[in-house]
Amino acid sequence: MRIAVLGVGLIGGSIGLAARDRLAAEVAGYDPDAELLARAEELSAVGSTHDSIADAVAGAEIVFCAAPVGVLPDVARDALAAAGRDTAVTDVGSVKRDAIAALGGDPRFVGGHPLAGAETAGVENARADLFDGARWYLTPTPTTGGLLYDRVQRAIAGMGARPQAIDAQAHDRLMATVSHLPHVLANVLVAQAAEALAGDYSERFPEVGPSFRDATRVAGANPAIWGDILGGNREAVADQVEAAAARLSDAAELLRSGDQDSIAAWHAGAAEHRRGLLAEDRAAGRLRELRVLVSNTPGVVAQIALALGDGGVNIEDMALHPSADMSSGAISLFVTGDDDARRAAELIGALGHDVVPVER
Amino acid sequence: MRIAVLGVGLIGGSIGLAARDRLAAEVAGYDPDAELLARAEELSAVGSTHDSIADAVAGAEIVFCAAPVGVLPDVARDALAAAGRDTAVTDVGSVKRDAIAALGGDPRFVGGHPLAGAETAGVENARADLFDGARWYLTPTPTTGGLLYDRVQRAIAGMGARPQAIDAQAHDRLMATVSHLPHVLANVLVAQAAEALAGDYSERFPEVGPSFRDATRVAGANPAIWGDILGGNREAVADQVEAAAARLSDAAELLRSGDQDSIAAWHAGAAEHRRGLLAEDRAAGRLRELRVLVSNTPGVVAQIALALGDGGVNIEDMALHPSADMSSGAISLFVTGDDDARRAAELIGALGHDVVPVER
Repeated sequence: MRIAVLGVGLIGGSIGLAARDRLAAEVAGYDPDAELLARAEELSAVGSTHDSIADAVAGAEIVFCAAPVGVLPDVARDALAAAGRDTAVTDVGSVKRDAIAALGGDPRFVGGHPLAGAETAGVENARADLFDGARWYLTPTPTTGGLLYDRVQRAIAGMGARPQAIDAQAHDRLMATVSHLPHVLANVLVAQAAEALAGDYSERFPEVGPSFRDATRVAGANPAIWGDILGGNREAVADQVEAAAARLSDAAELLRSGDQDSIAAWHAGAAEHRRGLLAEDRAAGRLRELRVLVSNTPGVVAQIALALGDGGVNIEDMALHPSADMSSGAISLFVTGDDDARRAAELIGALGHDVVPVER
Repeated sequence: MRIAVLGVGLIGGSIGLAARDRLAAEVAGYDPDAELLARAEELSAVGSTHDSIADAVAGAEIVFCAAPVGVLPDVARDALAAAGRDTAVTDVGSVKRDAIAALGGDPRFVGGHPLAGAETAGVENARADLFDGARWYLTPTPTTGGLLYDRVQRAIAGMGARPQAIDAQAHDRLMATVSHLPHVLANVLVAQAAEALAGDYSERFPEVGPSFRDATRVAGANPAIWGDILGGNREAVADQVEAAAARLSDAAELLRSGDQDSIAAWHAGAAEHRRGLLAEDRAAGRLRELRVLVSNTPGVVAQIALALGDGGVNIEDMALHPSADMSSGAISLFVTGDDDARRAAELIGALGHDVVPVER
């Protein structure tokens, strides 16, 4: 088959590599940045390079629009204008409502969003296996052509992803809840702490604890991308942000009531919620946390990770909690299932470290 | 010197060990749980055990009240009732206002709060070096006796901590901002996501991303402790929670405005704030983040951590971002300062992994 990739960053480049590798596709590439396009060709992410969208799109069975979110609808519109009647046009934007509103009436357009690659950027990091096992949302409308939709779905499944159809608005609400809202909360938390810093105890701000560090890790992340995402999904995000504000007002009221039993029940309920959410996240079993008390010198993390690796236990997630002077601390290790948790505790115990299982 | 420790969990036990080890103190121990008290003696955390607070307190120069937050004021009151005129009584509660309101008029009482040990619990985990380098807040009042205050301050400095005087209300506001508020935000976020889950897309909830996982790590943490902390500091926490709700409402309004430049500026400001906050957190230099793309098999974390350890680079913090099917992923590594960041990138590159420096 022949596909076109419009925009050759991390996602576009990986689509090109996966399509060539897994679908034996010819890949026509276009990017307004000629240097980037040449680099993509060097890396074999595209098989041919083209000076215009119309050139790249000619003869393609599927056109993948992989430009930055802000210009995606324009690129997709140009692609549809240039493409023939039997060409499917899809995109990879993380917000779908605007694209669907603009283009969803065209039977050739299928909105898409692969959940992959958020952790990096650039065609240099493109990989043929980027989408292996990744959810890839598709947002067909009632007017979307069935054969073209099926073609897109089969292609992305062939590239290793797990396609799933979802209504565009439901998609945007979902992303607003699990991805965009955490970013807004992080932004708000650092702003509030910074204001406290500038206040009457500015010179004695404490070591910022692990809870603060974890909660704000994504504050202000990747401004070039996130400004567009938050703006592009503004209605759904604003709904979620307002809902969170209302929940916080309720929580403040509960706290002021001084009703200790209700406060404790509310707090314990959060542990239940998280367990439920993360359990759904893991096919292989429930995520278990172990805390290890260690001296925080170079090598200790390695020693533990190595022992677990040798023992066949995979570390799913890890968080370090250094003490104030970095002389010691704790490591939170997350492994999957009770068996791995038990095995991990044995392996770490054998190294002479104290292990504390954490029930949540 | 002679001290008394009332309550022999992690903190009380560590005070006992540190006082015996660093101050050559005689340590009299009391705990309502006789078994626990015996265990503390076995572990040398206390030198003598006593059946009552009055017995333990007799002859002590400093009494450390290390009971759970909920009963701390009662324990401290009993200690003051039993103690002589030249005995200082201090506590370790993470909320100070109530204790000060109840006891701050007594010249012998000095409220205290060591920032240590939050990552675990139990006398089994007590260590003489738990407080090394840790901030230890003291909340004297105008009526606190100067000589007794000085005695407490010198003792905790001798145990390795860094004492700092702070007004009790300022302390509680500070903790509400940097510690208690993140916990409330995490609770609210999981509740909101759980509700979304139960809604119309319950069967197609996506893999929960790293931003969600980081943001909710402390949701519902340690219910036995946190119910009391949130309740005990309820006014200050409620103030902070309401302020966060107001900020979220403002953020929702900004988003709805669709003013892309202002949204981008607001988002970029958050990165500035976080940089400022974490820079103050590190004496040795700015925390730098590197992203490493890896296959997520047992052993890779170890390989990298080992290479950094061998190269003398300390990993200050680490977060794993597995791909959906766990077949690959990214590791965020945090190291201190530009030199370590450069060195880490070299060491990891030499292993054949791609390293992406993250500018925040």
